[in-house]
Amino acid sequence: MISSRIGRTLLKVIIPASLICTLLLIAQQNGAWSAIRSGHRSTTSTGGQLYHPKPHQNGTRENAAFVVLVRNDDLTSMRETMQQLEDRFNRKFGYPWIFLNNEPFDEKFKEFTSGLATGDTYYGTFDESMWGYPEWIDQDKARAARDDMAAKGIIYGGSESYRHMCRFQSGFFFRHPLLDDFDYYWRVEPHVKFTCDIDYDPFTVMREKQLKYGWTISIKEYVETIPTLWETVKNFINEHPDHVVPKNDPESLLGWISNDGGESYNLCHFWSNFEIGSLAWLRSKEYLDYFNYLDRAGGFFYERWGDAPVHSIAAALMLKQSEVHWFYDIGYFHNPWYQCPSEPEWLPAEKCSCDPDNSFDKHWYSCTPEYLKVTGKQRTDYLIAQRN
Amino acid sequence: MISSRIGRTLLKVIIPASLICTLLLIAQQNGAWSAIRSGHRSTTSTGGQLYHPKPHQNGTRENAAFVVLVRNDDLTSMRETMQQLEDRFNRKFGYPWIFLNNEPFDEKFKEFTSGLATGDTYYGTFDESMWGYPEWIDQDKARAARDDMAAKGIIYGGSESYRHMCRFQSGFFFRHPLLDDFDYYWRVEPHVKFTCDIDYDPFTVMREKQLKYGWTISIKEYVETIPTLWETVKNFINEHPDHVVPKNDPESLLGWISNDGGESYNLCHFWSNFEIGSLAWLRSKEYLDYFNYLDRAGGFFYERWGDAPVHSIAAALMLKQSEVHWFYDIGYFHNPWYQCPSEPEWLPAEKCSCDPDNSFDKHWYSCTPEYLKVTGKQRTDYLIAQRN
Repeated sequence: MISSRIGRTLLKVIIPASLICTLLLIAQQNGAWSAIRSGHRSTTSTGGQLYHPKPHQNGTRENAAFVVLVRNDDLTSMRETMQQLEDRFNRKFGYPWIFLNNEPFDEKFKEFTSGLATGDTYYGTFDESMWGYPEWIDQDKARAARDDMAAKGIIYGGSESYRHMCRFQSGFFFRHPLLDDFDYYWRVEPHVKFTCDIDYDPFTVMREKQLKYGWTISIKEYVETIPTLWETVKNFINEHPDHVVPKNDPESLLGWISNDGGESYNLCHFWSNFEIGSLAWLRSKEYLDYFNYLDRAGGFFYERWGDAPVHSIAAALMLKQSEVHWFYDIGYFHNPWYQCPSEPEWLPAEKCSCDPDNSFDKHWYSCTPEYLKVTGKQRTDYLIAQRN
Repeated sequence: MISSRIGRTLLKVIIPASLICTLLLIAQQNGAWSAIRSGHRSTTSTGGQLYHPKPHQNGTRENAAFVVLVRNDDLTSMRETMQQLEDRFNRKFGYPWIFLNNEPFDEKFKEFTSGLATGDTYYGTFDESMWGYPEWIDQDKARAARDDMAAKGIIYGGSESYRHMCRFQSGFFFRHPLLDDFDYYWRVEPHVKFTCDIDYDPFTVMREKQLKYGWTISIKEYVETIPTLWETVKNFINEHPDHVVPKNDPESLLGWISNDGGESYNLCHFWSNFEIGSLAWLRSKEYLDYFNYLDRAGGFFYERWGDAPVHSIAAALMLKQSEVHWFYDIGYFHNPWYQCPSEPEWLPAEKCSCDPDNSFDKHWYSCTPEYLKVTGKQRTDYLIAQRN
C-alpha cells in the first residue's frame, strides 16, 4: 500500500511529532488528582466578506487557556517556547497556562514557568484513570503488540508511555479538572516555535465564528501505527450515524480524509501538537461516544493509535467545514516542519521570522492542498492578521 | 604546553565561534563602497552604590547601532536573532541595524530584515581595502600557511575567507562609512540568541559610565591559531609604552590575560561575537596603531589570528578596569555556550528563558572567574536589570 520511500519519510515525520511523548517514559500512576494554582500570579476574508474580531474590553478575555503536557526535564525548552508565545501573542492578552504531567511538577519548574507567564499558571497531575490501562485491556497482549512493533522497527512501536500519552491526549486532557472552567484550549508543547506576531485573539475568533477546531500543519500518518483504526471508525459510524455529518452534505469534510467516499482512510490528519479547540466539543456526547468506542477497541494499546488521527478523524466526520479553521497566519514550527504564511506578501516580511519559501503547506507531503481543494478555499480566505 | 584534551575542547569551542565566518566563503572584492539606507523604515551596584541609567527623553536615543556582518544565505537565522533582540530589547528603543556584507545584499534580505526592525536599517558592502590582501602580504606564503594549518587539522586553518573576516572585524568594521555617525556599536551575529529581557539601555550605560568595551562570555583561545601573536604584542608595547595602562596601575587588566606579568598570554579573551563598544576607542590613534602593527606583522594571514583575542588584548592593555563592563544580565547564547545570570534569583526566573545552572560563566573553561578575581568584583556588581 505504501512504498518504502514514503515509509521512511513517515519515520522522519513521526520522530519529531513524538518527541515529547518519548520523554514521558514512566507511566507512573499517581493515586490522586492534583491541581495546584500558582500563587505567582484583524480580519479574515470569508467568501469575500471581511471578518474583524471585536476588541476585548479592558481586562476581559475569553474563557480559554494554554494546555501543555510536559515533564520537569523539559523546563528549558518549555521556557523558550513560552517566551516566544508570550512575545508573539500573549503579553498583549495574558491568557493562563495549564501544565499537566503524569508526575508532580518540581518547584523549579513551577517558579521558572510562572515567572515567564503573563497570565496565571496552573500545575496538575492525573491518576491512572487518565494514564493507565482500562480493565478491558489484556496487558499481555498489549506487551506482545509492543514487542512485535518494536521488532518491526516502527517508531515508538515499543513504547508503553507513548501509548498512554496518545490515549490521554485523545480522550482525557479536556476532562482534567483544571480545564473545567474553560471553553477553549490552545495546545502547546515544549520545543515548538511561534514565529509570527499574532495581533488578534484566536480564542475570540473561535467563539465569534463558532469554530470547534483550529490547526496549522496537516500531514499523513504512518499507516503501520493504525492498521485497524479506520475499520473501527467505520463500525462506529454504522452504529452512530446521527453523530456524523452526512457524507453528501456540502459542509462535510469526509473528502479530506478519504479519497473513496469513506471506504478507506487516506492518512491525512491535522498535526495535533498545535491545536486551538472547543472544549465543549471534546466534552460532547458525540465525541465521547467516539473516543470510548475507539478506547474499547483497544487500538491505543494493541496498535499505536495517535491522538492526531483520532482528533482529526473526529473533526472531519463530526464537524462542518465552517467549524474548522486553518490558522494560516500563525507561524509555527515543530521539528522539522514550518507553517509560514506567504501571502499577502507583507505578512512574512513584517510579522514573521520564518521563511515562507520553506512552509510545509506547499510540501508534497502536506495534506493542506487537498484541504483547500475540498473546502473550495484559498489561503487568504483564512487570513486574519492585519497590516498595522 | 596544552594537552590534547584541552586541544580537543578548544576545537569544540572554536567551531561555533567561527560559524558565520565559514559562511563567508568567497572573499569577493567589490570595487566600490556601497552604503544603502533602507527606505523602509535600571540599576547596577558598583561597590555598593546603585547606578540608574537616566531614562531617555521621548524619542531620543544614543548615537548607537547594531552592526552585523552577514551574508544573504543567513537570512532566516538572522531574522530569528533579530526577532529575539527586538523582543527582548529593541522594540522599546528602536535602534538602527547596520548590515555589512562582502557581497551586495539581495532584495529579499533587505525586505525581510527591514520588515522586522523597529529602527532604520542600513545595508553596506566594502571594497578590497577592508576584505583583501595588503600589499606587504606574500600571498604564496599565506597559501602555504593555510595548507600547513589545514594539514594539521586546525579548525578553519585552511580557510582564506575566515582570515579576511577576522581582519575585517579586527581593524575595519568601525571605519565603514555607515558607522560614521555613531558613537557606539552592538555586534550581533546570525544564529545567536538573546534570552533575557533587557529593560535598560546598554548604550546609555556605556555613555554615562564612560565605558569603552562590554562583553558577555569569556573563554580561552586555540593556541595554534596565534603562535606569534603575543610576541608581536610585546614588541608593540615596547615601541608604544604610552599606549598601554602601566602594568602596576591598580586599574590594569593585564592580570586577566597574563599570569606572569605580561611574559606570556594565557589565552583568555572576550568572545567577540557579542560586543557593545565605543567606536571612538576603536578609531583612536592608540587602537589603530595597535591594529596596524599587528596587520604589518602578517599574522592574520600567515597564522590565523582571531578578532576576539585581538580586541580582547587591546582592551586588557589599553583600557582601565572601570572602562570594561561585563553585561552579566544580558542573557546570551552562541552555540554552544550560554551566559545566563543566576542572581539575584528573580532574574532568570522572571526575565530569561535560559537555564542559569547551565551558564558558561561558572564553567571551568570560562575566563570569567579570573576576571572577577582580577577586578575584585562579584557578579552582582555588574547587575543593571531591575525587578519590575
